[in-house]
Amino acid sequence: MSKTIPYSVRVEFGDCDPAGIVWFPNFFRWIDAASRNFFVECGLPPWHEAERTLGIIGTPVVDTHARFRKTASYGDTLQVAVSIAEWRGKSFVQRYRVTRGEDAIMECDEVRIFAGRREDGSIFAREIPAEIRAACGGKP
Amino acid sequence: MSKTIPYSVRVEFGDCDPAGIVWFPNFFRWIDAASRNFFVECGLPPWHEAERTLGIIGTPVVDTHARFRKTASYGDTLQVAVSIAEWRGKSFVQRYRVTRGEDAIMECDEVRIFAGRREDGSIFAREIPAEIRAACGGKP
Amino acid sequence: MSKTIPYSVRVEFGDCDPAGIVWFPNFFRWIDAASRNFFVECGLPPWHEAERTLGIIGTPVVDTHARFRKTASYGDTLQVAVSIAEWRGKSFVQRYRVTRGEDAIMECDEVRIFAGRREDGSIFAREIPAEIRAACGGKP
Amino acid sequence: MSKTIPYSVRVEFGDCDPAGIVWFPNFFRWIDAASRNFFVECGLPPWHEAERTLGIIGTPVVDTHARFRKTASYGDTLQVAVSIAEWRGKSFVQRYRVTRGEDAIMECDEVRIFAGRREDGSIFAREIPAEIRAACGGKP
Repeated sequence: MSKTIPYSVRVEFGDCDPAGIVWFPNFFRWIDAASRNFFVECGLPPWHEAERTLGIIGTPVVDTHARFRKTASYGDTLQVAVSIAEWRGKSFVQRYRVTRGEDAIMECDEVRIFAGRREDGSIFAREIPAEIRAACGGKP
Repeated sequence: MSKTIPYSVRVEFGDCDPAGIVWFPNFFRWIDAASRNFFVECGLPPWHEAERTLGIIGTPVVDTHARFRKTASYGDTLQVAVSIAEWRGKSFVQRYRVTRGEDAIMECDEVRIFAGRREDGSIFAREIPAEIRAACGGKP
Repeated sequence: MSKTIPYSVRVEFGDCDPAGIVWFPNFFRWIDAASRNFFVECGLPPWHEAERTLGIIGTPVVDTHARFRKTASYGDTLQVAVSIAEWRGKSFVQRYRVTRGEDAIMECDEVRIFAGRREDGSIFAREIPAEIRAACGGKP
Repeated sequence: MSKTIPYSVRVEFGDCDPAGIVWFPNFFRWIDAASRNFFVECGLPPWHEAERTLGIIGTPVVDTHARFRKTASYGDTLQVAVSIAEWRGKSFVQRYRVTRGEDAIMECDEVRIFAGRREDGSIFAREIPAEIRAACGGKP
């Protein structure tokens, strides 16, 4: 079973658009931060360290599917619950539930990879090490 | 048949992350601009005008599904082809194909609504006027 | 004497550029949030409420001068100390000191106004009410 | 005499805040793009190439002073005129004039450096090569 790690967001004036509600690309900014926070809380090193030790430069998104349930605005505090819904050989599904108190605000499932870099600068999906799966609460 | 409207994006240094590639939330920034440009090119007024004349304050996203095919970096020029894949009663599916020359970079299908505002400030999905569908190349 | 209100920032991966350091426009995003937080902590209502009660729609910046001392990167936590350096008739100078532990990272002095909106939609600088100055720790 | 290189910006819905005007940190995003465009137009290589050939990883800002004259909103097209106001030994002043037709919108003077990177990862200001000054229209 994956761990679930919470992450908290303060919505700011500048995150909102002329309609007075959160401009939706900002949700992706926040869940990307929540994604990284998940791995830090599970004990993985920051990416600039992981590049040297594990050959991992980050976890780019290859597929994302989000639903926006209710609007949010500045002054709101949002909670993001982050977990891993599925481990695959070279990718994984990271799941986000964004709430404000009892209200469901946004849900998102992302497929991400652990990216390595080739000598020519291009990136590729690494086989996910068993110890990473284990650290995140998956079956080792 | 929906029209297809092109939109062009210059990728900038600040759009890229420490891995040297576009930080993915920026794609949503660009396709949101391409979405608005689609409606402007189809002859719809800007939202601050549409609020007065049509009671429409914008087209918030309620569902989005994106796939990232290849990475992009600063110095790239991307082309975004925007169309309406489907009209529903109170929502529509806007489709984006992002390319760099021959390369497919990103694809996205979004469900959006034409939003009105209630007296209490909350927003709701308006019935889509036939003239808007017609202006965008859909069946009137 | 103005109050000094602290504000805390987590630097995220997506806040950094291909050189691996904070992309500088993000500092202005953070100090804008710290500015609003200052007024909230001093007891002022959020702007959507202030518009109704005080005729104030926000505090736009008219002049800003910033110095960047040391770089920051993701994983860093920054502290922003916010105060009012000077009250003028229709504007004020808001001061920010951004630090990471002992390190000075950035300093900024901004001239802002309390903006009202005319019937034609344009904005203007309001005379600053004595009770706002007093709430922020200035001479009433 | 420095060259003056124009750069054009379309203001988008998402660039504006709940007051309906450009949220000011976006101006710094745009002038950073205009800064890089200046050097590209003057014939300098992109930074990922310059890192290999000149040891330059970018041109970080060390000091910036901006004045906001009039507001802008989505639908506006802005022109940014970029020049080098002064060359110093290890830094330079880059100047921006942002206009919308006849209207002055924003002015900014930035002190930037050409940054190299030390073995420990920290960055430093390089002596500015005479050929760069010459390419930008300064005295060689």
